[in-house]
Amino acid sequence: MSLVVVGTMAYDSVKTPFGERDLALGGSATYFSVCAGYFTKVMLVAVIGEDFANEDLEMLKNRGIDTTGVTRSDGKSFRWKGEYGFDLNEARTLDTQLNVLAGFDPVLPETYRDAKYLFLANIDPTLQRKVLDQMNDVKLVALDTMNFWIDGAIDELKKTLERVDILIINEGEARMLGETPNMVQAAKQITSMGPKTLIVKRGEYGALLFHDGEIFSAPAYPLEQVFDPTGAGDTFAGGFMGHIARMNEDKINDTILRQAIIVGSVMASYTVEKFSVDRIKELDRAEIAARFRQFKRLTNFDDLSGEL
Amino acid sequence: MSLVVVGTMAYDSVKTPFGERDLALGGSATYFSVCAGYFTKVMLVAVIGEDFANEDLEMLKNRGIDTTGVTRSDGKSFRWKGEYGFDLNEARTLDTQLNVLAGFDPVLPETYRDAKYLFLANIDPTLQRKVLDQMNDVKLVALDTMNFWIDGAIDELKKTLERVDILIINEGEARMLGETPNMVQAAKQITSMGPKTLIVKRGEYGALLFHDGEIFSAPAYPLEQVFDPTGAGDTFAGGFMGHIARMNEDKINDTILRQAIIVGSVMASYTVEKFSVDRIKELDRAEIAARFRQFKRLTNFDDLSGEL
Repeated sequence: MSLVVVGTMAYDSVKTPFGERDLALGGSATYFSVCAGYFTKVMLVAVIGEDFANEDLEMLKNRGIDTTGVTRSDGKSFRWKGEYGFDLNEARTLDTQLNVLAGFDPVLPETYRDAKYLFLANIDPTLQRKVLDQMNDVKLVALDTMNFWIDGAIDELKKTLERVDILIINEGEARMLGETPNMVQAAKQITSMGPKTLIVKRGEYGALLFHDGEIFSAPAYPLEQVFDPTGAGDTFAGGFMGHIARMNEDKINDTILRQAIIVGSVMASYTVEKFSVDRIKELDRAEIAARFRQFKRLTNFDDLSGEL
Repeated sequence: MSLVVVGTMAYDSVKTPFGERDLALGGSATYFSVCAGYFTKVMLVAVIGEDFANEDLEMLKNRGIDTTGVTRSDGKSFRWKGEYGFDLNEARTLDTQLNVLAGFDPVLPETYRDAKYLFLANIDPTLQRKVLDQMNDVKLVALDTMNFWIDGAIDELKKTLERVDILIINEGEARMLGETPNMVQAAKQITSMGPKTLIVKRGEYGALLFHDGEIFSAPAYPLEQVFDPTGAGDTFAGGFMGHIARMNEDKINDTILRQAIIVGSVMASYTVEKFSVDRIKELDRAEIAARFRQFKRLTNFDDLSGEL
């Protein structure tokens, strides 16, 4: 089933201990779309500047991604510059240029409005709600946000959260939003704000799912070479939502959610192996399936509770 | 099969955001023994001072733990004082008094020397090797250490590591010993130093096992109330080694190692629910089995690689 994503399309300048790349294709919606596109029909909503390369847009179109909702504005595309230290855990932002993103006013093409799945990547919660308003009969809405909005626009964010099914945020943000360092308690707080399902991204430690009183813990795939962590969270979300939209169950259930988290983790693990979308745009189904099996192997142990 | 442990018996003064306790029974060998004692015969080697309460020693004896190797010296027992902040991740040490530990010269009773399993808790690597020397025909040796020895006694530590099968350390220590932030690379470095098997403790993020080219990732149990993390690592080791000694396989294998890590994680999850050994001394087999099943539920997902 069709999946609408609204977010950023950007050019990133990234430096890691293993190399650097200037003006590499990036942005939450870009990473998300490339990944979700392996599993379902993706409809992209974003704003780009005059500088956005046609070949980058063509690359997305050639992957079957609907770019009708991508508008080109006067000015430059959103740009982000950052670097990572040796532990690769957190980016240090060196420069952010909003450029055309400052005037972003997302209008959904008519053809998008009947889609059943919606992912609101990390943008202003007021804009996220505006996108929600344009959907006719959406079945499942997931949202990402960040400390900037939790800190600076909590009232707007809470109004948006009331209408969301799944919140996908990182661990520090979950602690901030839930107002406690204890993740189980934070999850209770957050799931009382609207989203019945919470996914907490923990970087190299994997992800936690809180849903219907159940907790699922997924590891990250231990890689010998992590090249560039940029986009890992967005590709996690892309794999996750892509799988859910593809399965299109009547009611979201624990089994699908758990599998979707592993699919997201698989996609994130590939993302970090190269700069930009270089690795994830060259994947095939066999590679995705192979790493899914490796996740199974990574976490498997035999029950012995009967012998204890 | 019998399991010898050498380590500390101590009195800890601990402050957490949820309460404080002065001079509570602690020490690596104490925590380890109480946990391992649920699964196998434990033979304890440690030094205590004149202040060590007979009732604490009796508590251990009543649990079937062999305390023949516990010697009482003039002076006070080892004492540690620390506090934890709200995230409970790392203790801030306020005071360490070695006391009788400064003159610790472990001598194993004859009855201990034919034991097949040995756990060397975190003490001076020279003393760890001295204990090893006294064992007649040990089948499996595991060792814990800390940054203090990696930093200050690396040559002695490396000499000891050459004779060890399993190294159990925390994540920061693994990075330090392996001289890289990347855990897969660090594991390769460390397993070339002697121990064929490496277990990396990651606190609230669980544990990683590196063995024979395989990686296993175990979560920590997400608790709504973590009361006091002191002893979690030692009880993890106690559950882990207790299970291995109980199973007493001819050759250590991946299946047993994975199960042992979950048993260790179960014990650690109980430890942190109360101060000192208060929670782990009151457990029964049914509770241990129940939480083992919860770990299974926590990590379980259905394979779908065939459909990808």
